[in-house]
Amino acid sequence: MTTSETLPQGVTVPQGFSAASITAGIKPSGNPDMALVVNQGPRFDAAAVFTRNRVVAAPVKVTQAALKDGNPNELKAAVFNAGNANACNGAQGMTDAKKMAEDTALALGVDVSDIAVCSTGLIGELMPMDKVHGGIDKLAKNLGTEQSHGAGAAAAIMTTDTVPKQTVVHGQGWTVGGMGKGVGMMAPSLATMLVCITTDAQASPAALDAALRKACDVTFNTLDVDGSTSTNDTVIVMANGASGVEPSQEELDEAILKACADLADQLQADAEGVTKRVKITVKGTGSDAQALNAARTLGRDNLFKCAMFGSDPNWGRVLAAVGMADAEMDPDNISVFFNNQPVCVESTGAPGAREVDLSGADIDVLVDLGTGGEGTAFVRTTDLSHDYVEINSAYSS
Amino acid sequence: MTTSETLPQGVTVPQGFSAASITAGIKPSGNPDMALVVNQGPRFDAAAVFTRNRVVAAPVKVTQAALKDGNPNELKAAVFNAGNANACNGAQGMTDAKKMAEDTALALGVDVSDIAVCSTGLIGELMPMDKVHGGIDKLAKNLGTEQSHGAGAAAAIMTTDTVPKQTVVHGQGWTVGGMGKGVGMMAPSLATMLVCITTDAQASPAALDAALRKACDVTFNTLDVDGSTSTNDTVIVMANGASGVEPSQEELDEAILKACADLADQLQADAEGVTKRVKITVKGTGSDAQALNAARTLGRDNLFKCAMFGSDPNWGRVLAAVGMADAEMDPDNISVFFNNQPVCVESTGAPGAREVDLSGADIDVLVDLGTGGEGTAFVRTTDLSHDYVEINSAYSS
Repeated sequence: MTTSETLPQGVTVPQGFSAASITAGIKPSGNPDMALVVNQGPRFDAAAVFTRNRVVAAPVKVTQAALKDGNPNELKAAVFNAGNANACNGAQGMTDAKKMAEDTALALGVDVSDIAVCSTGLIGELMPMDKVHGGIDKLAKNLGTEQSHGAGAAAAIMTTDTVPKQTVVHGQGWTVGGMGKGVGMMAPSLATMLVCITTDAQASPAALDAALRKACDVTFNTLDVDGSTSTNDTVIVMANGASGVEPSQEELDEAILKACADLADQLQADAEGVTKRVKITVKGTGSDAQALNAARTLGRDNLFKCAMFGSDPNWGRVLAAVGMADAEMDPDNISVFFNNQPVCVESTGAPGAREVDLSGADIDVLVDLGTGGEGTAFVRTTDLSHDYVEINSAYSS
Repeated sequence: MTTSETLPQGVTVPQGFSAASITAGIKPSGNPDMALVVNQGPRFDAAAVFTRNRVVAAPVKVTQAALKDGNPNELKAAVFNAGNANACNGAQGMTDAKKMAEDTALALGVDVSDIAVCSTGLIGELMPMDKVHGGIDKLAKNLGTEQSHGAGAAAAIMTTDTVPKQTVVHGQGWTVGGMGKGVGMMAPSLATMLVCITTDAQASPAALDAALRKACDVTFNTLDVDGSTSTNDTVIVMANGASGVEPSQEELDEAILKACADLADQLQADAEGVTKRVKITVKGTGSDAQALNAARTLGRDNLFKCAMFGSDPNWGRVLAAVGMADAEMDPDNISVFFNNQPVCVESTGAPGAREVDLSGADIDVLVDLGTGGEGTAFVRTTDLSHDYVEINSAYSS
């Protein structure tokens, strides 16, 4: 199973998927802002994972319903827009999201219950449905299976992203492609993360669902830049069996994981105002859940994140942060390693700790909570920089 | 009961308390860095609250022991230093903190078990005990009961504080004084918050403890600037009965609350890099604890805090943040008010929401989670500014 940046990337690389992108005028910038990904069959198996936020945008509700209604666990197309999240718009928001599915179904001649809708952008602004309506018609007329069609779709779903994000994974006679948008979970008001994965493998909805959930747990769900979770987060996988190959669950798991990991890396690297990519691993506590709680507590600590921005091996902030975590620990036996060098042993500074070099873009942090327990987990986060404040304090960014 | 900024302030205003401050050379700046507050009796009743962090600095352990050992719930003096937190220094840290208590007891001719030790500053650096030892001798020789002695002590315990913090509350024939240091909980690596309250009222340790805990719950514990809790946080109250007046529990509660509230206001106003003071109230959920969880979740959300810095009435970020809180809510019936103006009703934008003026230094946020439940709580937080990042990314600030 191979993946490479030099190979053609994106949702149209697997057989039997077409895509289109157009400028509907939703983004003030005038950049492309709508995309369509169509599964041409022969099969239409699908699975998805959604935001855990209780405040859920209308398009998410429409997509959740599409996977249950009509042909359960089937999708024939996903329509995307950027620039407006259609979140917190009340009954009108639901009406508009359903209309987007209806227009798309009509344009493609398929059932409305097989259409996913994904929106990303500002919360609390009504969708400009006149522009969207015309946009969907144009999308349907511009569909194509070239790599450039997929690339156009990946660009059209960008918001504060600085680069489009695509991936490809090649199995034995079958392929997984994908696109994503998002800037490291840092902008939930921009309805942060959308991912669409396509494959020409033959795979049941249950197999897709299992592979996708496992992959998300160790990729997108570990990307915890500021603890925020958007109202619109959606990850969709569509499989059409066009390759005639039915991979084993293990092979499918591996390919979906590789695609998600590649996109998650790109999301983290493009997080708003990021100068450092920080991986935090916690061990030596009672359970994996406790380790995850401690890793997240540290990953969300602004003082720690500012220290990372300053390339400052300030391990005291690590102890102060994890000391508040809901995890078993021995307060007198905590160890901290920066880039594999011990900076704190038995909760006390190690020789040379202040001289550890954190000037590189990648920083590895390991915290052993010292109980001897088997619990372990990791999260990936970023530093807290001037640019983060700048980007996120501009009026309704 | 009166309090006023124009009255003399500080720990020496109540009868029977003396204080001193000196420069021991712990702070690189050469500013005063040690202080001593002595209770001259006749009574020595005391109570204290401490950090909830599991990683607890050595001086905190010494003070906790002092309140249990020898004469339980009595303190005759508290010795302070700034510039070094004596946290995460292992066995040597405990030896040094005990030595500070011993030196102070010897210099004052009192029992070591009646000495509180409070340190604030960098974590993980050994205390320069030669400087501290000489400093304690000088402190004991410089004690005085003038208002200037208390003011000197308040200045000596500052770290990144830009102004000293003192308070006074006058009852009928008795007085409460106090000093504090801290910058709105924003710098746990600087061992954020120390408060010392003195009173010449006659009050039992139990009465003091009850008054102090109630006061802290609605003052210092609501100051939740970035969710951080220091290794050294300590709030001490000492009562000597020198006034001969024994206030009722209600009167004591009220006076201690006023003193704590005044100091908490000063801490919040002096938080690092602050341009906005934000009060968040949450109601309409299942319990006060749930309301507090939601208020804290919002108060810690960096995107919301960046919006406050930008005076941006971005209520979508409020919904996205509280949607992740561990609190009962009706996701379709959340209301948000900025400065008493509705910006979101039934989880949908209110007319004129984007035009609400947040340009002032104080912003009031009210969130109704829409369940009709009785739970309510508030926290006080700040914005997230360029200066916050600047101050906290400098090397081992």
